[in-house]
Amino acid sequence: MGEFELIERHFVRATPRAALGPGDDCALLAPAPGQALAITSDMLLEGRHFLATVPPARLGHKALAVNLSDLAACGAKPLAFTLALSLPRADEAFAAALAQGLFALADAHGIELVGGDTTAGALSLCITAIGEVPAGGALLRNGARAGDQLWVSGCLGDARLALEVFRGHAALAAADFEAVRLAMECPQPRVALGLALRGLATSAIDLSDGLLGDLGHILRRSRVGARLELAALPCSAVLAAQPRALREECLLRGGDDYELLFTAPAARAAEVRAAGAAAGVAVTPIGLIGAAPDLVLVDEDGREGLAAARGFDHFA
Amino acid sequence: MGEFELIERHFVRATPRAALGPGDDCALLAPAPGQALAITSDMLLEGRHFLATVPPARLGHKALAVNLSDLAACGAKPLAFTLALSLPRADEAFAAALAQGLFALADAHGIELVGGDTTAGALSLCITAIGEVPAGGALLRNGARAGDQLWVSGCLGDARLALEVFRGHAALAAADFEAVRLAMECPQPRVALGLALRGLATSAIDLSDGLLGDLGHILRRSRVGARLELAALPCSAVLAAQPRALREECLLRGGDDYELLFTAPAARAAEVRAAGAAAGVAVTPIGLIGAAPDLVLVDEDGREGLAAARGFDHFA
Repeated sequence: MGEFELIERHFVRATPRAALGPGDDCALLAPAPGQALAITSDMLLEGRHFLATVPPARLGHKALAVNLSDLAACGAKPLAFTLALSLPRADEAFAAALAQGLFALADAHGIELVGGDTTAGALSLCITAIGEVPAGGALLRNGARAGDQLWVSGCLGDARLALEVFRGHAALAAADFEAVRLAMECPQPRVALGLALRGLATSAIDLSDGLLGDLGHILRRSRVGARLELAALPCSAVLAAQPRALREECLLRGGDDYELLFTAPAARAAEVRAAGAAAGVAVTPIGLIGAAPDLVLVDEDGREGLAAARGFDHFA
Repeated sequence: MGEFELIERHFVRATPRAALGPGDDCALLAPAPGQALAITSDMLLEGRHFLATVPPARLGHKALAVNLSDLAACGAKPLAFTLALSLPRADEAFAAALAQGLFALADAHGIELVGGDTTAGALSLCITAIGEVPAGGALLRNGARAGDQLWVSGCLGDARLALEVFRGHAALAAADFEAVRLAMECPQPRVALGLALRGLATSAIDLSDGLLGDLGHILRRSRVGARLELAALPCSAVLAAQPRALREECLLRGGDDYELLFTAPAARAAEVRAAGAAAGVAVTPIGLIGAAPDLVLVDEDGREGLAAARGFDHFA
C-alpha cells in the first residue's frame, strides 16, 4: 500500500465543519465572528516522548491529547487539527490502530483532522491544534496575583511512576502498573475544565514538564511567588504507597501529567470547585500565590524550603 | 545552553501582529472579518527531504517556503506560523543560522513565528502555516474545466537535477551546480502569484511531488484530462543542456519545484500573463484541459502518448 492510499484509507474522513478538509493544498476554516484563534503545535518522537512499547491506538490518542491540553490551558474550545506523520513503513495495522485512537479522542471533542503530511522516516507525530476563545478571554500564564489560590486538576505523578517502572527503577503489581501506564499513555486533556475556568482563573498552564517547572512559568510571567504544600498534592493510591523520595520526585518533577495548574482569587474557591464538578474532574488547592518572587515548598513534615522552579529540559 | 535558553535567544521575537505570540500554551490570532483561514502543515526530515550537506540557513528558509507554497497554491495571504523543531543537540551556531534563514523569509512575507515546540532528536522541522483568503475565494484543485489552458510558473526540474548530482548520477560545472542547488535548497514560494490569480485561475496546486503526479491531483479532482506539451515546459539553460532522458525525468517527475501549476480560461491568457508580470515570475502555458479523463503527453518530436499521472510516493 502506498502513501496516498494509506492516508486515504485511514486518515481522510468527512469534515462537515471545516470549509475545506484534507486533500487540497490547505485546509480552510471559517472562524466565528468575535473569536480569537488559539494555535498550538506539539511533536512526539519515539524514544523521547513515547516508548516503542506504546500501543499505537494510545499513541494516536496521546499525540492529540497533549495538544488539546494546551488549548484547555488557554480556555479555548478545540475546532480542528493537522497531523504531520512520519512512519518507518506503510504498516496498515499500525496506521489503522493509530487512526482509531486519534479519531476516538477527536470525536469525543467534536473536532476534525483537516490536513497534514505523511512521510517515511523514524516514527514521529507533529500535531497542530486550533481552537477558538472569545477575543480577550483566553487564560494566560501572566495573570496570577498575590493572594490567589493555586489549584491543580486530577492526580499528579502517575505518568512518571510508570516511566520509572519501564526504566526498571520501580516495580509494581500488574494492576497498579496498568493503571499508571494508562496515565502515561492516555492522558485526558482537561478541555471542559479550561472552558469552565474562563473568567474565573487568573492564570493557567498545562502540566507537561513537571509541576515545579511549569509553576515556574506562571510565577515568572506573573512576577509573583508561591507557597506550595507538598502534602496537599493530589496523588493516586498507587503513588501514595511508593517510597517518599520517589513519590516526591514524581509529584514535583514528574512531567507528562497533562493536568491544569491554575490560580484563582481565594474568594472564588467555591466557584472553582463547581467548575471542577461541572467538568467532571477533581480540583485541589495546593498553595497560595505571594508577592515575593520565591517558590517556598512546604514538605510533608511542615518544613519550609526554597525550591528551584525548573522543568524538564530536552537538552540538559 | 538549555532548551528554553536556545529557543529564547534564537526563535522568540516580537510578534506585533499576533494577539499573543510564543511563550504561553497557545498563540492567539485575531482573524479579519469575512476571511477564511487557510492552514497547512509540512514536515522536513533529514535524509528524506533534505541532505545533511544543506547549509542551515537554507534549511530554515526551505522549511517555511514549502508551507508558504501551499498557501500560495490556495491564493492565501500568509499570516503566521508555528515550528516544531527537533535538533540532535543544542548547537548554537546551527540554531542561529537556521533561525536567520527562517526569519529572512518570514520577514519578506511580513509573517510571525507564533509558537511551537523544541525537542532533542533526529533533525526535523514541522511547520504549520496559517493564511487568510476571502471566504469562498480560495484556489482549489477541483475547478479545472475542458478548454482551460494549463500554466506553470518559473522553471521546472532544477531541484531534481541537483539531487541527481548529489547522488552521483549527473555531473555539472561548479557554477551550474550552485545554480540548481539553490533551486533545491532555496525554493521561492509563489505567494504574490497566488494572490494575483484569485478570481482568475480555475484551479491551482503547488508542485512538490513532480509535475505528472501533481497534475494528476488536479485532473482527478476536476474530473477532466489534459494534453501536456513537453516542448513547452519551462526549463533552465543548465537543465536544457542535459541528456534527453534525464531532462524529461527532471521536468516530469522531478519534485521539489515549488512552482504553481494552475488552469485558467483560454480567453483570459492576457490576464494570466499580467498576473505573472505583476508577481515578478514567468508564467508559461504548457497544455490544455480536455473533457476525456486521459493525460496525453506530446513529446519533443510531436509524438503523442498516454502518461500515468503518478507522483512521488514516500513508501513506494
